[in-house]
Amino acid sequence: MLTVLKIGGNIVDNPEALDLCLRRFAAMPGPKLLVHGGGREATRLSRAMEIPVTMIDGRRVTSAETLEVVTMVYAGLINKRIVSHLQALGCRGALGLCGADAALLPSHRRSPEPVDYGYVGDINPDDIPAERLMRLIDNGIVPVFCAITCQTDDGQLLNSNADSVASALGAACARLTPTRVIFCFEQPGVMRDINDPTSLIASLDPDSFGQLRAEGIIHSGMLPKIEGAIRALRQGVDNVVITNIDGLATDRGTVIRL
Amino acid sequence: MLTVLKIGGNIVDNPEALDLCLRRFAAMPGPKLLVHGGGREATRLSRAMEIPVTMIDGRRVTSAETLEVVTMVYAGLINKRIVSHLQALGCRGALGLCGADAALLPSHRRSPEPVDYGYVGDINPDDIPAERLMRLIDNGIVPVFCAITCQTDDGQLLNSNADSVASALGAACARLTPTRVIFCFEQPGVMRDINDPTSLIASLDPDSFGQLRAEGIIHSGMLPKIEGAIRALRQGVDNVVITNIDGLATDRGTVIRL
Repeated sequence: MLTVLKIGGNIVDNPEALDLCLRRFAAMPGPKLLVHGGGREATRLSRAMEIPVTMIDGRRVTSAETLEVVTMVYAGLINKRIVSHLQALGCRGALGLCGADAALLPSHRRSPEPVDYGYVGDINPDDIPAERLMRLIDNGIVPVFCAITCQTDDGQLLNSNADSVASALGAACARLTPTRVIFCFEQPGVMRDINDPTSLIASLDPDSFGQLRAEGIIHSGMLPKIEGAIRALRQGVDNVVITNIDGLATDRGTVIRL
Repeated sequence: MLTVLKIGGNIVDNPEALDLCLRRFAAMPGPKLLVHGGGREATRLSRAMEIPVTMIDGRRVTSAETLEVVTMVYAGLINKRIVSHLQALGCRGALGLCGADAALLPSHRRSPEPVDYGYVGDINPDDIPAERLMRLIDNGIVPVFCAITCQTDDGQLLNSNADSVASALGAACARLTPTRVIFCFEQPGVMRDINDPTSLIASLDPDSFGQLRAEGIIHSGMLPKIEGAIRALRQGVDNVVITNIDGLATDRGTVIRL
């Protein structure tokens, strides 16, 4: 079973959490790949460079200058920090990638209507060269992806959503090999009440998800994560778990099934 | 014959020169890899971030903050700009790497005596995993290396010299396959008189190099380039050429032989 582990920006921003998470990833048996979110460093660097930071509905608007910043921070600083950390943990196959590398994450610029997010890209899932990626993994490579993707025809780099990258890579690999996707973030899973750690929803399917969404219990940032998970399952991913770093050790979390 | 092409910082800094150079690289038949220098953007970003830029004998002193800057600029911005440009040119195998990736460029921090350059690394040529690198290339990957290397045991990223990276990679690949190294920079080759374009030295061997160096005709930045070339030839590289972008098309330049 191939494991796709996605780690969120809050983990990336916390050195101790990142270390623990990478230790658990390095110890996972079998073929695997990592997808990491961005964290707050892109905002820090933008401010230092006096580049305006614009968010619409919690999403970063990516101007040409901001695209340079996120390429530097996500594909350079954070990606290589994670890869070198994995090397220190003995994971010799760790190899950092963005979507331009070997054209592994082809995307297209999102329409500027109704909202112009700038250089933001939506992945073309059917164009992911799954054979090329699996050949790397079969040769002992442990890919570490940031969420910078590439409009391959003209080479335009684009800023994408790391959850979407993980779902799309999971679905692409599932065409060739049994695949699971784990979303690791700061909560033990999908919670009924974010302030009550005992309110973990142990499993979700499209029906129960629809109901909880209608009731307003699942909302905001969790929606695209679960929608992506369901899409990945429909495209052949064997299972999807949403969990935190503890859950990587205990196998607890929210399991999404069809 | 595997080609290792090294392009200098002056080419990286000039969009038209870079475009032409990448077109010639993309058109080269056979297995190949690219090594790129840094250029001036790291200095630009350091200034924007108000990080002091210290040079000793033309070499950048790499503080912890400067290491973050060069990791962002070399491994992020420039490396992914080159890779995405190669994608636009149809070179689907182009894949950006630093030395931490798959532990391809193991190095050690240079002794702080007699001069402390900070987080600067010298490559451990015998530790380059040539089989791992050649397996990537045999699978259609076209590696694009920046000169950030990694002290693998503790994961410390280090700033290295791009000429040295090219020579070391050439020597490592030469253990497994016939290999040539081309250094592409702003001059037509090694010149007797840098102001006289007809003064190209068509070929050099260790004896003639020693003589020209003693006469002061070859000096400063050219010395480590040629010394590295001779070392690479002694380690089995088939031939080394120092040339400019025109030379990539005309096969003119300075050929270094043993």
